[in-house]
This record gives sequence, C-alpha cells and structure tokens, in this order.
Amino acid sequence: MYIGVDYYPEQWPKTRWSEDVRMMKELGINVVRIAEFGWSLMEPEEGTYDFSLYDEAIELFAKNGIDVVLGTPTATPPAWMVRRYPDILPVDENGITISFGARRHYTVNSTTYQEFSKKIVNEMAKRYGQHPAVIGWQTDNEYGHEKSDRSYGDEDRARFQDWLKEQYGTLEKLNETWGTVFWSQTYTEWEQIPVPRKVYQEHNPSLLLDFDRFCAEAYNRYNRLQVDELKKHIDERQFITHNFVYTGLALNQKEMAKDLDFISFDNYPVWGGLPEPITPGNIARQHDLCRGTKSGKGYWVMEELSGAQGWSRIGYLPRPGHLQLWTYQAISRGAEAIVYFRWRAARFGTEEFCHGILDHDGKPKRKFDEVKKVIENMKVFGDDWIAADYKADVAVYHDPENDWAWQIQPQSEMFNYVNEFLRFYEPAYAVNAITDIISEVEELNSYKVVVVPVYFLTKPGFTDKLKAYANAGGTVILTYRSGVKDEHNVVTDQTLPGDLAEIAGIEVNEYESLQSGQVNQVEGVQGAIEGIMSDATVWCDLVDPVTAEVLAEYRNTFYSGQAAITRNRTGKGTVYYVGSAVEPAMLRPLYKEVLADAGVATVETPENVEVLFRGESGSEFMSVLNHDTDAAHSFELPEGKWQDPVTGEVYEGTFEIGSLGSIVLKKQQ
Amino acid sequence: MYIGVDYYPEQWPKTRWSEDVRMMKELGINVVRIAEFGWSLMEPEEGTYDFSLYDEAIELFAKNGIDVVLGTPTATPPAWMVRRYPDILPVDENGITISFGARRHYTVNSTTYQEFSKKIVNEMAKRYGQHPAVIGWQTDNEYGHEKSDRSYGDEDRARFQDWLKEQYGTLEKLNETWGTVFWSQTYTEWEQIPVPRKVYQEHNPSLLLDFDRFCAEAYNRYNRLQVDELKKHIDERQFITHNFVYTGLALNQKEMAKDLDFISFDNYPVWGGLPEPITPGNIARQHDLCRGTKSGKGYWVMEELSGAQGWSRIGYLPRPGHLQLWTYQAISRGAEAIVYFRWRAARFGTEEFCHGILDHDGKPKRKFDEVKKVIENMKVFGDDWIAADYKADVAVYHDPENDWAWQIQPQSEMFNYVNEFLRFYEPAYAVNAITDIISEVEELNSYKVVVVPVYFLTKPGFTDKLKAYANAGGTVILTYRSGVKDEHNVVTDQTLPGDLAEIAGIEVNEYESLQSGQVNQVEGVQGAIEGIMSDATVWCDLVDPVTAEVLAEYRNTFYSGQAAITRNRTGKGTVYYVGSAVEPAMLRPLYKEVLADAGVATVETPENVEVLFRGESGSEFMSVLNHDTDAAHSFELPEGKWQDPVTGEVYEGTFEIGSLGSIVLKKQQ
Amino acid sequence: MYIGVDYYPEQWPKTRWSEDVRMMKELGINVVRIAEFGWSLMEPEEGTYDFSLYDEAIELFAKNGIDVVLGTPTATPPAWMVRRYPDILPVDENGITISFGARRHYTVNSTTYQEFSKKIVNEMAKRYGQHPAVIGWQTDNEYGHEKSDRSYGDEDRARFQDWLKEQYGTLEKLNETWGTVFWSQTYTEWEQIPVPRKVYQEHNPSLLLDFDRFCAEAYNRYNRLQVDELKKHIDERQFITHNFVYTGLALNQKEMAKDLDFISFDNYPVWGGLPEPITPGNIARQHDLCRGTKSGKGYWVMEELSGAQGWSRIGYLPRPGHLQLWTYQAISRGAEAIVYFRWRAARFGTEEFCHGILDHDGKPKRKFDEVKKVIENMKVFGDDWIAADYKADVAVYHDPENDWAWQIQPQSEMFNYVNEFLRFYEPAYAVNAITDIISEVEELNSYKVVVVPVYFLTKPGFTDKLKAYANAGGTVILTYRSGVKDEHNVVTDQTLPGDLAEIAGIEVNEYESLQSGQVNQVEGVQGAIEGIMSDATVWCDLVDPVTAEVLAEYRNTFYSGQAAITRNRTGKGTVYYVGSAVEPAMLRPLYKEVLADAGVATVETPENVEVLFRGESGSEFMSVLNHDTDAAHSFELPEGKWQDPVTGEVYEGTFEIGSLGSIVLKKQQ
Repeated sequence: MYIGVDYYPEQWPKTRWSEDVRMMKELGINVVRIAEFGWSLMEPEEGTYDFSLYDEAIELFAKNGIDVVLGTPTATPPAWMVRRYPDILPVDENGITISFGARRHYTVNSTTYQEFSKKIVNEMAKRYGQHPAVIGWQTDNEYGHEKSDRSYGDEDRARFQDWLKEQYGTLEKLNETWGTVFWSQTYTEWEQIPVPRKVYQEHNPSLLLDFDRFCAEAYNRYNRLQVDELKKHIDERQFITHNFVYTGLALNQKEMAKDLDFISFDNYPVWGGLPEPITPGNIARQHDLCRGTKSGKGYWVMEELSGAQGWSRIGYLPRPGHLQLWTYQAISRGAEAIVYFRWRAARFGTEEFCHGILDHDGKPKRKFDEVKKVIENMKVFGDDWIAADYKADVAVYHDPENDWAWQIQPQSEMFNYVNEFLRFYEPAYAVNAITDIISEVEELNSYKVVVVPVYFLTKPGFTDKLKAYANAGGTVILTYRSGVKDEHNVVTDQTLPGDLAEIAGIEVNEYESLQSGQVNQVEGVQGAIEGIMSDATVWCDLVDPVTAEVLAEYRNTFYSGQAAITRNRTGKGTVYYVGSAVEPAMLRPLYKEVLADAGVATVETPENVEVLFRGESGSEFMSVLNHDTDAAHSFELPEGKWQDPVTGEVYEGTFEIGSLGSIVLKKQQ
Repeated sequence: MYIGVDYYPEQWPKTRWSEDVRMMKELGINVVRIAEFGWSLMEPEEGTYDFSLYDEAIELFAKNGIDVVLGTPTATPPAWMVRRYPDILPVDENGITISFGARRHYTVNSTTYQEFSKKIVNEMAKRYGQHPAVIGWQTDNEYGHEKSDRSYGDEDRARFQDWLKEQYGTLEKLNETWGTVFWSQTYTEWEQIPVPRKVYQEHNPSLLLDFDRFCAEAYNRYNRLQVDELKKHIDERQFITHNFVYTGLALNQKEMAKDLDFISFDNYPVWGGLPEPITPGNIARQHDLCRGTKSGKGYWVMEELSGAQGWSRIGYLPRPGHLQLWTYQAISRGAEAIVYFRWRAARFGTEEFCHGILDHDGKPKRKFDEVKKVIENMKVFGDDWIAADYKADVAVYHDPENDWAWQIQPQSEMFNYVNEFLRFYEPAYAVNAITDIISEVEELNSYKVVVVPVYFLTKPGFTDKLKAYANAGGTVILTYRSGVKDEHNVVTDQTLPGDLAEIAGIEVNEYESLQSGQVNQVEGVQGAIEGIMSDATVWCDLVDPVTAEVLAEYRNTFYSGQAAITRNRTGKGTVYYVGSAVEPAMLRPLYKEVLADAGVATVETPENVEVLFRGESGSEFMSVLNHDTDAAHSFELPEGKWQDPVTGEVYEGTFEIGSLGSIVLKKQQ
Repeated sequence: MYIGVDYYPEQWPKTRWSEDVRMMKELGINVVRIAEFGWSLMEPEEGTYDFSLYDEAIELFAKNGIDVVLGTPTATPPAWMVRRYPDILPVDENGITISFGARRHYTVNSTTYQEFSKKIVNEMAKRYGQHPAVIGWQTDNEYGHEKSDRSYGDEDRARFQDWLKEQYGTLEKLNETWGTVFWSQTYTEWEQIPVPRKVYQEHNPSLLLDFDRFCAEAYNRYNRLQVDELKKHIDERQFITHNFVYTGLALNQKEMAKDLDFISFDNYPVWGGLPEPITPGNIARQHDLCRGTKSGKGYWVMEELSGAQGWSRIGYLPRPGHLQLWTYQAISRGAEAIVYFRWRAARFGTEEFCHGILDHDGKPKRKFDEVKKVIENMKVFGDDWIAADYKADVAVYHDPENDWAWQIQPQSEMFNYVNEFLRFYEPAYAVNAITDIISEVEELNSYKVVVVPVYFLTKPGFTDKLKAYANAGGTVILTYRSGVKDEHNVVTDQTLPGDLAEIAGIEVNEYESLQSGQVNQVEGVQGAIEGIMSDATVWCDLVDPVTAEVLAEYRNTFYSGQAAITRNRTGKGTVYYVGSAVEPAMLRPLYKEVLADAGVATVETPENVEVLFRGESGSEFMSVLNHDTDAAHSFELPEGKWQDPVTGEVYEGTFEIGSLGSIVLKKQQ
C-alpha cells in the first residue's frame, strides 16, 4: 500500500533534501507526489526545457526506494507566457480579466493555452515516461477549483457557441429546447448567443445549465488532451489520475474519470476560516463520492490534510488522533493510497499557512509522531484491508447536473444541494448502513434500498430504471422536488412528481418554498415515526395520496393535515416520498424502519461513532471511528470475536472507543 | 368591469390555445394582455415584420368575446439587434456593460434604440390600431425596474450633459447651483461633467439628484416617443397605459402619467425570497399611490399576483382567500380592472417559477376555483362599485424626488423612505381614515388633514400651499427633517425647519442621527399621548418651541426634557411637528386625536382588519378585509344596516370576518 | 498657542466674510487653514492662474491678526485636467477606473499629475511664500485616505516594476526573496510582474507587502516633490506639514514625516454611521502615534471635530463637554495647536453634513459657546502647558508594515491590527501610565517597560535592540505571533518565536487560530493573575517553557494545561510572553504588577477617567478627563496640592470630575 507525502523539492535548498528523505524513510513513506507547480522551472523560457532539478530529486527518491508521482504543471502557467499571450487569462462574469499572481489563471478554452499544455506535457512524458521510479501521473491540479471552472471571455463564448452547434445542430432546435421565445431571446445566428455575463435579472435556466455542461466538458477535453499527450510516451505501467475536489463546480468528475486510470481526491475535513471540521457524515459522503466516481474503483487521497490549513486565514487545528482517524476513514471507504499534504509548511508564497507533517522549522514533532504511528499500525494489514470487498446495500443518487440546476434555481434561500443530499444520506450513515453513491449509469438491482434526494432535474434513463427497480421489489426513497425538470432544465407539464407520480402513488398539486425563519411542523402518524414531531424547513410539498398511505402530516398553516410523508406499494416494491426537509429526529427512525424492512444490515452506535465493514462475511474488517473530540463511547460489537491485528487483542460484546480513537478489527473465524 | 389574465400564446403550442380560452371563459375572463415580450417574433430579422402568431391569437380571442390589450415589446430587444448594435446595451456604475440574456438590456438614451423602438411600435400600431378586439396598449413593461433605471455609458453621459445644458443654460448657473466650488469641481466645458460612476468617496448630492431627474425624464421622453408613434395609427377608442412598479426607481410616474390615458400597476404583495407578504398598509399605500398618480383617476392592476412568485427563489405561497382579499383591496382603493398574472406558469425561461392561475400542468385547481369565485362574486356589483366615488379626508404627501434625495443621503443607516412614509401614513390607515397620496401639484383645500412625512427636499410652491392651507384652518402633520433642502438638494441657510418654522412655531437648533441599536425615549406630556412612552429611532430633532406647545419630550441623553412633538396654532389652523421616528403606539393615539379634532371619519377595527368606503353617503360600499391569516375578528359596523349583495344577507352591530375573509357590504337606505 | 478653524472662503459669499471673521475673533481664534481644495479657482484653465479670491481672504485675515495656513490643492484635480488627461485617474484592483466627481481621484504615480502638481505648488509658493500672514503650508490633504492609497493601473504597474528594480537589483534576488518558485511565479523580465489585481485565490504575500511599501513610498516621493517645490520660494519661517489619518493605509507616516517640519492629524473620535465615539484609549492611541511619528515632536490637530460628522450618513452627536474634553486630551498628549473642523457646515457638496462650530444657518449656538469657553480656559496657560515635557516610562511598539502584513494575512477572521494593538496598549493606558508609541528606530533605554504587540513581521535591528534591552535589565512584554516573519514577509525557519525565543525562554511548537465563536479559557496560576479566568480568542500559542516560568495556562481542548502566559528572567531583565488574546480582566492586573515591578508610576482612576501628566516633577500639569457621558467619578489625587489655574481653586485628596468633565490642574510647589 502506498503512503506518501506531497513534496516540493524546488521550495527547499538541495542541502536539505537528504535530511527530508531520511525522515520520510523513518516514517515509512514509500511515495511522493512532486512537480505539479513547477512549470517555470521546467520551461524557464518559451520552448526551452530544463528538467535538471526534478531529475536530481527523482534520482534521490529512486535511490532511497521512494516512488514518484509526477504532476503536470499546467495549473500555473508561467509569467513569461501570460505576458506574451494574455489571451490565455480567464475572464469573470463581469468581464474582468483574472490577473497573473496566483494559480489557475487560464481558460481551458484558449487554443494558445492548449498548445502550450500539449508541449510541456509531451516534454515531461518523454523525459519521465520510462523512468522506473515514476509510477504515475497527475494531470494538472484540482481542475476548476476556486471559481476557475467558468470563464466568460470572448474565446470562451466562441467555444460555447461551437459546443451548442454540436449539441443542437440547428438554432431551431436550440430555440425550441431552451424556450427562447420567452423574453424574446430567439437566436438567429450562433454568434448571438452570450455566455452568462452580468444581466439586470437572471439568465435563461436552460442556457445556464448548458453553459455549466459546456464548462465541464471543456475541462474534460482539456484533460483528455493531456492524457493523450502523456500516452504517446509513457510506459503502460504508469497510471494517470487527477486530484479532484467535490465542491459543486461546473465539473463532471465522473465523465472525466473515464479518461483516467483511477481518480484521486484532496481530503481537507477542515480549511482556512473554519472553526471546526465538517461533519463525519460529510467526510464519508466525499469518500463515497470518490469511490462512486469510477463506479466502485479504489482511489487515492492525493492530498490528505496533516496540519492546520489556510491561506490568509488558518482554520481549526486538527487534534491529536485526527490524523489516524481521517486516514482510517478514507481507507475504510475505498482509498487505496494516502498522500499527506504536505511534507513541510512552505516559508513563502500563498500557502505559507498550509501546515504539513513538519512545520516551518522542519523539526519532527507531534504530527510527525502521529503519522509514524499510523504507518506502523497499517503495516500489519499489508494490502489485505485495502483489497477487501466493499459491498453496499444502500445506494444514494448523486448528480452534478442536479447540483448545477439547484445552484441556478435554489428556489428557497435555505436550499443547498450538499446539505439536502446529506439530509437524506446521513440517516443511513448514522446507523452504519454501507452506502454507495451512484449516478444514473449504475444498475440498481444489487441494492436493497435506493435513496434519491431532491431529484429535480430528471434523467430519462434513470427514471425508467427507478420505476423498474421499484416494481421489481426494490425500495426507493424519493424526496420533495422530485421529477420537476427534464434534462434541459425545462419544467414538466405533468402533475408532480411527474414521471415518478405513479410509483410514488401521489400527486403534488401545491408546494411552498420556505425561507429563513419560516418553518412548518410535520407529525408522524404511522409506523416508527408515529407521534414524532419535526420542524419542516426549506420546502413543503403538499402531498395528495393517490394509492399511497400517509406516514406523516403537516401540522401548521392552511395545509395542516395534508400528507408530508407517504409510502406506496408498487408492483413488488415500495416507494417512500418525503415531501419536506424534516429533521434527523424524524428521518433516522424512518430510515431504520425502511432499512430493516428491506433487510439492510445496520449497527447501532452512539452519535459520532462510525463503523464500517469491508471484506468477506466471517473474516471482515470492521473500522471503528470515534469522531467525538471530547468523550469516549461504548457500543455493542456485532456478534462474534473481533481482533485488533495491531495488538492482537480480541474483543466481544461491549466495546469502548476513546475520544478521536480509530481502530480496525478483524472478525475471528 | 374588466377581469383578465396576462397570457403568452407564444409560449404554448397552438393546439392548447382553444383549451386555454375555454377555461378563461369558464372563469368569466373578458380581457387578456399579450405580446409585451414578443419582439423577436414580430421582427425576426432587422426590418422584416411577421405578426402572424399574434394575428391568430387575437382572432381567437375576438371570436370568443375576449378583449385584448397589446404590450409593445421593447423591454426585450432581440438578440440580432444586440449583436449588430451593441451600443444599445446599458452600462453599470462601474462601467460594466450589461449583457444580453435577460430583459431591459437597453439604455433609453441610445438613439439607435429609439429608432428601432419607433419602427416596431409603428408597425404594431398600423397592424392593430383599428382592430375591434384590441382595446388598448401597454407601452413596454415596468420601465426602470430591476436597476434598469440608471445607465452610465458614454451615450448616457452625452445626453446627461445635453439635459443639463437645457436645465441650466450656462455652466456658471450650474456651477453656482451645485456648489461645484466644493472639492474643486467647477466645470468649464459641458463635456467635463461625469455620470456618477464609481468614486472613492461620494458624488456631489446636487449632481446625483439631477442625474436621477435626468434618468426619469429620459424614460418619459422614451415613453412619449412610443405614445406619439402609437397615436399616428390607433383608433381613439384604444387607450394607452403603462404598468408601473413603485420601488424607489429614478422614475417619475406622475410625470409620465401625463402622456397616458390611465396608469397601470403590477401588484405583487409577495415575491421571490419573501417569507411573508408586505404589510396590508404597505399594499394600501401602493394603491393610494396608483390612484394619486393620475390625481384620483382609476387605474388597472395589469399584473395581479395569482400564485407563488419568484425567479430563482420562490416566495411565500398565497393562502386560500388571499386572491379575493387582494383583488377586493385593489378595487376598494381605485383599481378599475384586474388582470391576473399569469394564466399559467411557464415551462421555460427565467420566470418558470412565477406561478399563475394554472400551474405548469395546466389543470384547474385551487387557484382556478378561487378566481372563479371572485369573478362570480363581483358580477353582482356590475360597474357600480368601481364607479363609486372615493372621497378622502386625509392627504399624505409623497414625492419621488424626495425619495431620491433620501437615497442619496439617508443620513442615518436606519433611514428608508418607504418605511418612514409608512410610519406616518399607517396611523391613518389603521383607523380606516380614507387617504389620498398627493404630490406638490394637488390642491389641499378639500382635505381635513394633510400629512407631510420627511419633507426633506422642499418644493417652493408646495411649501407655500402648505402655509396657506394651515393658516386658512387646515391641519398639517410635519415630521423630523422637514424643510432642510431646496429643490437643488442644497441645504437651507435658515434655521430648521426653514420655511416651515413659522407655521410649526418651532426651531430645530440641533439634531442627532441615530444608528442601528441607538435609541432615545419619548414621553407624551399632554393630550391623548400623555404618559405614553415610545422608542425614538432613526433621527431626533431637538425641538425648541417658539409659539408651539409641547406634546411630547425626550427622556434620554443630554437632550432629555427637550421637546420631541409639538402643536402650533397658526392662523385658523394647526400644525403638528413630530421630531423623531416614534412608534405606532404613540402615533396612533396622536393621529386619532388629530383626526377627531379635524372631523375626519374613522372606524375602529382590530389589527389587520381594513375597512374602506366608496360611494355616496347613505348608499356606500364598505369593503371589509381581514388580512390576518390565523384568526377571525369582530368589530362594530358603522350605524345602519349593511347588506352583502352576493348573498343578500343583512348585517348590523357586531360583524365577524373570518381569517383572510373579504366582503363588500352596501349600506341599506 | 494656535487655536484655529478650517475655513472655506470660496464656499460663502464675500459679503459674509467679515461677519465670520468678527465671530472668529470673538472666539479668540488666531489661525485659519484655507485653500486645500481650491485648485479650480487657482488654475481655472490649464496654465492660467488666478489667486484673487485667496489674496482677498488672506488680506482680511491679516488685517484682523489671524494667521493663515495654506493647503496645496492637489487632493482635487480640476475637471478640465481629468477630461484632457484621463491617465491621471486611479484604477481599482478590478481594473475599474475611478471617476471624476469626488476627491483624491489621481494616482501619485502619474507623471502627468506630478508635473501639474509641481506647477500649482510652485505658483502658490511664489505667491504666498513671503506673505507675512502665512505661517505655513499643508501639502495636499489626507494622503491615501478612503482607499486612495493603492492604485492598480498601467502606470502604477510600470512604476512598481521600476521600484522593485531599485530594491532588488536583479530578478534573481527578487525571485529568491519572494519565493516565486512557489506556484511557478518566477519572473524573467521585470515587465512580467503584476500589480495585485483580482486573482481567483490570493497573491504572494511578499509581493503584496512590497506593493504596500511601494505605494507608501510613492506617496513619500510625491510629497517630497511638493516640499521641494515649496522650498524653492517660501520663507524659512514658514513651516510645511501634512494632515495624516492613521487608518491602516499603505502609507508610512513616519517616513514621510522626515520631509515635514512637524506632522498634523485629523482627529475625528466619531464619524458618519458610528453610533458612538471610539474608545478613549483608542483616541489616546492616535495621539501617541502622532507624537511618536516625529519621535516625540509636538504636532497639530489640523482638523478637530466640532460637530456631528458624515457624508451621506451622519454619526453620533458630540455631547456638551466633548469639545473641551477632546481638545484637552489632544493637548495633554502633545498637540501644540488645535484647528477646529470646520467653521460652518457647507450648504452643498459631499460634506454638507460635516457640521462645524456653526451649522448651516450660521448662528452662534451651543458649539460656538463651548469653543469660546475652551479658548478662554486655555488662555490661562499661555504656552506653558503645551511646552511642558512629556516623559513616558512605557513604550509600545507600532509598525505600519506589520499592520500591512496582518492585513495581508490576518490568519484569524477575528484579527484586526488596531484591536490587538489596543489590547496590549490599553492596560497601560487604564492605569494612566505615560506611554510612547515607538517604532524600530527609537532607542529603548529610557523606558522602563517596552510592550511589543503582535510582532509578526520582524525588523532585524529592532529584534537585536529588544534582546539587548532585556538583557541589560529592561522589561519586555511580547505577545502571541511574535517573530514569525522576516522583513520580506517570509516565515522564519526557526522554532517560534524565532529570534525572540531565547529572551522569552520559550518555544511555540504549535498554535491555533480561533475563529468567531471559538474560544478557549486561560487561568492565571501565579502572581497577580492567579485564579483569574479569561476567555482566550483570536489565537492560541501553545507555549512550551524552556527557561520561563508559567503565569497562566489554557483550560480547554487538548492543550488544556499548556502554558499561555510566561515570564522569563534574561540577563538583568524580564520578558513576558502573552500567548493568546486574553481579556482586559486578566491583562490589567498583569500589567499593574509588571509596571509596579518595573517602577513605573501609575494612578488608579475609575473606568473612563483618564489622567495625564506633563512637565517637571513638582510643578507638573495633570489633566483629568472623564469620558463617561453619564456619571461623575471620584478618585484620589496624587499626593500634594493641585490648583486649577482657571479658577484658582486648590484640591487635594478625593477629587470628583463631572460627566464629560475635563480640567487641567497644576501641582502646587
């Protein structure tokens, strides 16, 4: 198993290199990622290449048995290029050109930039494509991050028009699809179509969604350009990956993943300005997303936080224990390699306060010791743990295009796609049901329960799959605002939830968007949630049951008494409809019942204690992760004996896990 | 009486049209407004006109006995025009050009745009000016809305300079009037004068006010251009109107109204992102404004909300009852026709979530039934109700130029012109006194009480009128910050309240602007408010009585004991001065006393219950409107018997009106 | 002693001038500042000069025995100049050009503007350089204020590149120093270096700091240009000054002061939009800064607030008593002249609501009477008071470059340089210890205690001085985040607090940035603070004592028990380290003990009562200032008899000072 660090040899005197490598080896590090911001070193002037620094660094690693992942340096075009070819710079929605001086200052739509990118990637591939110590490549760095996903310049506009031509063929088709008859927006030449620059009101939502698709595909094309260039020269043993972030960008990681051997992820549970880490469920969500991005294939954490982070603002200091906890959580959910960011905090530049395993003074201290212990602990498992099967009973649907559609029309000021996704993902996580995050392309048959949160923008194929799955005996949880839009962001003319109305056995003839401070009440009237009251926020569908039975009702305003949550038997299956953003206090018992009915295995653990299984039943690994910074917690182990392979100790019955504790137990046969 | 809908035939398949018309007739609809965003259909390319779609739609309506109001389509210049003539686009205060992609993307100062506008209006007028089903015209749509009132481009700047030349004749005059000697701003060529683009500090307030006047007049000229063009071809039976919004724009509706047969208003008591409707008094204020805009002439509600509204954010869902309530309120206050916005929610475009009488699925549901009931109920009245006299005893002064002046210099961060207007309008509304909103041109003699809120920017004629009115026996309520500025936004060199000091019988030698969280206390010391304590916020005038008597005093800070509210007998009349923004709890008893003293009829009703009278005494209509969403309320009917013409039932004494109930009673003779 | 007013003869009819002068003389005014915004009067068209208005005004003052300070008018370039030479306009960080229409609309880097400035200053100097009534000059007005400190245009960029060339000589040196190897920012031509326009992320912190230095030096050069031009023609009797503001600008007042005879300061304890004045300690801080700017030399308050202030928003109304209180406070801390802003409120222009001694109506009222009384009271002292020695025992380090560095990287969202400076300045102020604010150039030997707040960006010379001072027996108070950066904004590679670790006797191996709502607890464990608990916010250094003893510990999170405040004996001296932003409740007792140990004289006064001493011991002046608006307070006078020279009354023992009272007592010998 690979455990590594992100290293920047160019940022330190060569006299320090050997000491760094010595300390890496002391830790047990076996891989480094380097070079992803090194363009001005590699091509100090146009057309002149110089790889001597990286040659030397790679030799040092090779000599010390540390493998190397190389990043292509295209996230940071050099100053000479920007000065000579300013058209590579991106432009914001006000028409303001983004300046040189940080990173990601290029538009993927610039043909000039595409040419420069090809050349540097080609040169790197020629240089290192056969190097035995180089095991793989990372293209660029965090595509689209920090608002670099959308550019609104003249060249972007021309490429957008080209792209639309490909998609629609004729303007008639585009006008018809987008409904440009609205507000007199009919286009009679492709050149008339704008990128969504500043307007007084708001752009056409179909244009906006297509612009996001275009931006995402432009990145895919750009990445493919790099992949193609690499493949001309690299050994087939070398992999190609990219380190994603999952933050609602106009980027389609799943599509891009098709061109990658596996995907990578940069895992920062806390960042500059955050007073505390995101919730454990939210971190879990990101790992499930990663694993789902290439349909269950393992992935690398290419940047795993190892200290307090931030640029001009530093966030929460990870506590003792967090490092192992987050590492174990990553591996439990599918990460096959962990690369800590970063080896040592930089003394200069924007990321001075991205702390690493070492701080600025370069001395081994608490974090160094913690990493050392993690690596030692994990050695016991060899590759067994990361190679063990991950088998989920519950699938949760996720779709970047839905995310974009919601960003375009949040409808309620309270709506946030990640929050609402988490609302309907978290109750399964809370009972430690094993979850996959899926998209419209996966088959559903292997799952016992499929959760489809805020399925606003529908995908014809997926809707059909859902219907077939439900009727064939599956259990589906639908939520408010399902079935509203077709794939072009046009509202259905059917009564809601549109194509899903039949399997849900309901009609939604009215609904209300709730704003900040506006709240309704929902009361359970049947089953596990009977008598439970919950705030209802964000949105209320006024559900009219047709064939469905009512599980919960509103208790306020004129629609008091109207159904809020329903269950419908359809064919051999069951479809739940949750018509409002109710609280965990209602969703958790509901899910528990649904999961039990569907035969999904769950484990009861205290709040903040996460349990996850990998491997064949009977000899499985069980990770136990206590995310609580303040208290130890106890829970009942699943039947049988469980051994800690690190200490050899065997547990059964009640198990206590300390504050921020993390452990992997193996079922005794 | 006209009851109609806003309809967009171009947005629906022709195969649906007849079903729509059938349902409209089922409701009792007798008018539709159409075509106001149809430019790209009517002129698909420069100079080529095609009215076939609207021909067909109008024929269908004509055949079904539904009259038609046509909107000129100039709010949405087509894509081909913007691409070929980008100079028509407006520019924001940072110099950023507003993009094509929404609506109102033109500057009225563009001569290119003026020419295009003339041509399309001319063509429409020729086509439909004699059509028997076409009863009238709406120019453009919501001039100036959504920040489209001010444009800061090169052509705007040149026209502003021209306008100033007209206003001032010489630069000497302009320099003198604006006080450009301050900060060395003396202009020696007209071309030096800027539009108020971004500066480090703030522009000269006189320039800012003149820029707002210029923007307003530019819209007036632009509207006149359309009116002139229409009149070349249309039958004199056809009216010309425009649908206003009243949201503090640099637009002078009253001036523009001179060129219109009557004005129209778009009535949205709640909109995207609002968790609840604006207050009933605030809606009443807008209707009074509308009625006052053409000095008491009836007006149309050209867009009356019929469902939840919003673009990317949807607001509060109007409750059952709201539709009739708001319709009745509109008619009670002078609306002569109601056109519901919109027939059916659009499936595409920016306004997808502007819900109509029908939702996206096109099925008649709750809202359809409510509209049906409203129309049935109103049929009983024929035109009697809308033709009945509206006779107000109380006038409240309103002035868009004061609004602009306050926007330029709010002085306190707590100041908002609408809020402060409402502060001094609402106590009359609360006791159901019949109010007019007037401007400086109206005669005052017919009123028993004239309220002049925050009369900061003075109008010489009006000040004189006020003085004469008071001395002749009228009752005037003045407020803090009266008499501060001359009409050029220059501060008076008289002791405040300047020209009004004499009739108010006071001097204001000091004052304090209060910020958020800063509050003084005022205590009544005489009359109806004796012993009442109120917070004083926003502003405190430290009033020195000269001939006035003190009604209330401050109770805090170093000016504790200083007069806050005074009353002065002047000639045969009385002038009140309210020196601070005190609360309704103090203003309501004060007004009650003032109105009683002045012989103004009032009716006591519970909070949120509005009562309004129209018609000859003895046979008048009394509307009773309960804006409370949660409770029924009772009150004592004025003496006599009151019949509900719909049911025939007769009431006297205590009357109960249900939650969101609305009813029109007729006095039994 | 000079007591004057800021007067704008050009804003009033000449017929009013003599009345104004008569009233000034009634008050006892002996100086006016004029002309600083009069460029368009002096040079109505390019190259044509006309000084007639100021000639006439100066003659009137001369005749009446009032001296004149002349402002050069360069803060407001005329309209004709901007139209003809638009390149003089500044540009914001988005590339948006700042418009004509307010003030400070020029970039100091414009060579065009520099030429125009030279000419007008030269003409003024020729005209008035020998005038007997003209006693001195103010260059421009409030350099850099209101965001005019940084301009990002093409000419600014070229000058920045030139400046960098001067600083670094070679690009190698610059690249090395800034660490441009980070994110591939290596520059290979000077022309590639940007000004810090908008980027997606954040610029290199070393570039940002150098840009601030460049901006500050550009203003210094620009001021020198004016000084040089003045000196060509003016009498050596005439002084040259500039009126500073101290608001965190990219301006180095101390450097600029080298070219001035003395500095001036615009003292506004409250301004537009503020609901109450800044704290007394914060005003004191600004006076100490002023006195320190030219190393203890007296300064003028060139604008001393005399009424409520603001542009479009007016702030808190100064209470009766504030005028004398703030005047006495200014003089107590080193002001040698007070010029009230402004004589009378303007009737037009942006500053209409900057109220003066007179309001718009020009009548003498409360404020006039208060100024009259202040001047009468002060006459008793002649020049004795302002000439008396000011001798501080406590020095507090302040550095604009540290301010900039903190603005670039606040690290915690809670960090604000002024607030944190005040945190560590205020405990000395609270016990009325006499304080100097010093920079890195002052000698430390004369001080008993040196406080060095948030010394993030270190200065090699000063660090050495501090070490020598401590070891020689001095007492130093260091705080969290000391010793982090070298002078180029690069992080030290030593363990923190870097070069100061040895004298502090500690190591800081970990730290945490605290965000809003995040709080730790610190408990004193020794000495005066034993048992005291305090919130710890903003930042926590986890202090490891090496030779230091622990005075306080954290009481929360995983570093509970870790040292938070330490004391170290080093050589003959003592160094305190305060590792977190603890509250006054902890810092005041700590400081009291430290000051007592160091032999610093203090006086116990109630909260909000400030006491300050000037002059030889035994015959010193003691100012007593009660900043409390609501209550009188009593305290024990220092031993001996104290006479009020105004009334002749003598006090000893308990002394009561009324709400907002201010008095100067003289020690009886």
